Amino acid sequence: MRFDRPFEGYAVGERYRSRGRTITEADIVQFAGVSGDFYPLHTDREYARQTRFGERIAHGMLTMSVATGLWVMEPGCVLAFYGIDALRFVRPVKISDTIYVESEVRQLTERGETAGLVTVHQRIVNQREETVVDVVVHVLVEREGNVSARA
Amino acid sequence: MRFDRPFEGYAVGERYRSRGRTITEADIVQFAGVSGDFYPLHTDREYARQTRFGERIAHGMLTMSVATGLWVMEPGCVLAFYGIDALRFVRPVKISDTIYVESEVRQLTERGETAGLVTVHQRIVNQREETVVDVVVHVLVEREGNVSARA
Amino acid sequence: MRFDRPFEGYAVGERYRSRGRTITEADIVQFAGVSGDFYPLHTDREYARQTRFGERIAHGMLTMSVATGLWVMEPGCVLAFYGIDALRFVRPVKISDTIYVESEVRQLTERGETAGLVTVHQRIVNQREETVVDVVVHVLVEREGNVSARA
Amino acid sequence: MRFDRPFEGYAVGERYRSRGRTITEADIVQFAGVSGDFYPLHTDREYARQTRFGERIAHGMLTMSVATGLWVMEPGCVLAFYGIDALRFVRPVKISDTIYVESEVRQLTERGETAGLVTVHQRIVNQREETVVDVVVHVLVEREGNVSARA
Amino acid sequence: MRFDRPFEGYAVGERYRSRGRTITEADIVQFAGVSGDFYPLHTDREYARQTRFGERIAHGMLTMSVATGLWVMEPGCVLAFYGIDALRFVRPVKISDTIYVESEVRQLTERGETAGLVTVHQRIVNQREETVVDVVVHVLVEREGNVSARA
Amino acid sequence: MRFDRPFEGYAVGERYRSRGRTITEADIVQFAGVSGDFYPLHTDREYARQTRFGERIAHGMLTMSVATGLWVMEPGCVLAFYGIDALRFVRPVKISDTIYVESEVRQLTERGETAGLVTVHQRIVNQREETVVDVVVHVLVEREGNVSARA
Repeated sequence: MRFDRPFEGYAVGERYRSRGRTITEADIVQFAGVSGDFYPLHTDREYARQTRFGERIAHGMLTMSVATGLWVMEPGCVLAFYGIDALRFVRPVKISDTIYVESEVRQLTERGETAGLVTVHQRIVNQREETVVDVVVHVLVEREGNVSARA
Repeated sequence: MRFDRPFEGYAVGERYRSRGRTITEADIVQFAGVSGDFYPLHTDREYARQTRFGERIAHGMLTMSVATGLWVMEPGCVLAFYGIDALRFVRPVKISDTIYVESEVRQLTERGETAGLVTVHQRIVNQREETVVDVVVHVLVEREGNVSARA
Repeated sequence: MRFDRPFEGYAVGERYRSRGRTITEADIVQFAGVSGDFYPLHTDREYARQTRFGERIAHGMLTMSVATGLWVMEPGCVLAFYGIDALRFVRPVKISDTIYVESEVRQLTERGETAGLVTVHQRIVNQREETVVDVVVHVLVEREGNVSARA
Repeated sequence: MRFDRPFEGYAVGERYRSRGRTITEADIVQFAGVSGDFYPLHTDREYARQTRFGERIAHGMLTMSVATGLWVMEPGCVLAFYGIDALRFVRPVKISDTIYVESEVRQLTERGETAGLVTVHQRIVNQREETVVDVVVHVLVEREGNVSARA
Repeated sequence: MRFDRPFEGYAVGERYRSRGRTITEADIVQFAGVSGDFYPLHTDREYARQTRFGERIAHGMLTMSVATGLWVMEPGCVLAFYGIDALRFVRPVKISDTIYVESEVRQLTERGETAGLVTVHQRIVNQREETVVDVVVHVLVEREGNVSARA
Repeated sequence: MRFDRPFEGYAVGERYRSRGRTITEADIVQFAGVSGDFYPLHTDREYARQTRFGERIAHGMLTMSVATGLWVMEPGCVLAFYGIDALRFVRPVKISDTIYVESEVRQLTERGETAGLVTVHQRIVNQREETVVDVVVHVLVEREGNVSARA
């Protein structure tokens, strides 16, 4: 999603497809190190080979983290990440898969005079256009007037 | 949460408090690098100083990622991270805050003969016992018989 | 600089100020690890204390690398980083300094039918608006028609 | 280059070939994370496939950063990285290429009583001896007497 | 080894096999960066090709470090890593090898009223069950009564 | 130690003091990530506060790893890290301590016609010249004739 304007600039139904990013073995290794999640499905080739996936897969939270990194966020526009609903890890992300975020604005909710909540349905898809994650995210953005005051 | 046994071993109402981990400036810097999320609230001291938080805060997804790293997961017991519901970022995590995961099993759902879904309510709390994240997670675990077969 | 359009869209004299990024101790530690440059001015507090800088400073190449990371680059617009001229490390960047890139387009040069060279004068400044690096960079961008073909 | 002695010890025409270092996918991933430069030419396999390079390439600044890491620098000998001139990224560095730095001292300039400027022409070459970067660097070194005083 | 109880809970002859972890190229790259050990046997493909190993190998200290990361350590149980004896790097660990730690308690020594020393013989083995490191480690653990007091 | 010549060039009693390196919070965070050792003594400020150390300390293996990174190793001279004896972690390394390696050659042992074993007593000391690690290391180096053949 592009969070690059005040709340008043969004419209329900608006869509955006992000640029892509390839999930490498190095990303999985680094993410294990940052998160502390060394579950062998992500870090042990021999173990992963015997699972239903047949090979190491990316941590679900790595996929979600990279997806937020693919958002375009302009300074002064985003106030906070508000929440996540109905997230399902639909398919595994494997080493060298490339992911993209398909977003659609679902709801717009005023939150007082300075902020608004943008609710976005997101499908994270891979290079074969298969959905790997399906999720609804809520991001708190500035309302008009406040953005310019800050920047 | 401890995911260290087959599905049959869990009981609704079971609780667990994880060990702690301090979120350092280095964690935020590394997480920006892994996720690609360099939003200035996390990476620019001057910018963050002027926000409602007054200083740089941890990415929400970093907090969630570290929380999954605090789970105890025995090889062969966890099949996959299934999903997330009703996640709310309640309070910011600041540099040098220490987080803990308070878990309580909410629901147990069979998923065919080999797997079961463990639904857990999680509160991520800081060193002052304030909730920073409130969330429900679903983890797919092996059913009895399958765990031993694998290990 | 914003490299977000085809060559024909730039004008000599156009200016842009990037968002900021704070250079942390963790950035210096990570950059030493990636570059392999462990010169004690960057990695040894006791040594650095006795130099003219009085404390550890960021690697010059870290400052330059972060500066390119502060560019806005749209996929399909940038073909390649072409070159650097007249780079001078004017002042040290210390731990917790925040840097910004001040850019001004200096020259526009056609390079055949598909590409053009955008020459930009860049001042990297810190939070006190002091210049820390002064440099001219050349970036090869797509010419009109080619961008759309790719994207 | 070897910066392992006071200014008086250098001679114009002196040459040095550094040890080698292989640029891996992990280096590119880490460098994207440190620099914040996630341009898809470096981080998206599908995108890179369609460019003139046909695959992901190393960031130019990664190649330059690793090259400075290949310098031999003795504590007390180097005062500061002074500047860069006439840098051209001549050929791409691809995953698993190995780079070496070929240096030749071009000029020696006194800078007062305590320092001197060593100007070095550098060719960064790959394992096929093809030049990938051509550049002139200036490094400020201690003059005799000052080195011993510090160490 | 599992260090998950007070000193009184160990018995000479007790054995434990750890979970596995695959040593990737990314681990070697990261370890070079953390340790500062860029010896070309670990970081230069062309160089390594000409050695007796025929390819890059993991740093010995990386293998040992990952092995300690494979220990199970309960908070409050381990006081300190005391020492290492008779460590021999028996075989190289190559990229994509998976390692496991085979432990056997060899000796138990009281160290005053609050601590005890657990001496463990460790064989680090690869996926072909070949020993890659043979070593004796000593870990200082809490004595009964002290663990509960802390936790 | 300097491993920068063939076996024949060493003498028992030869000493060397390495350059220094400051162990930062970022190093401990990164080392936890690479090793997988997140024991709370290293990663949890609240926990560490209540231990005998009163604060987070560096992993013993981090200190040893950085120490090997402080060795000077010339390509073609070192064949392999052979082993470690009598390692004792004597004092903790705390955040911002700077460490140095004090080495003395203890023994020289021929290993056939192409290699020799250099046995070195190492004290790793901090900025107050207190010993933090005491250890004997064995490094396999090339014998004369073999070095030149390789390089």
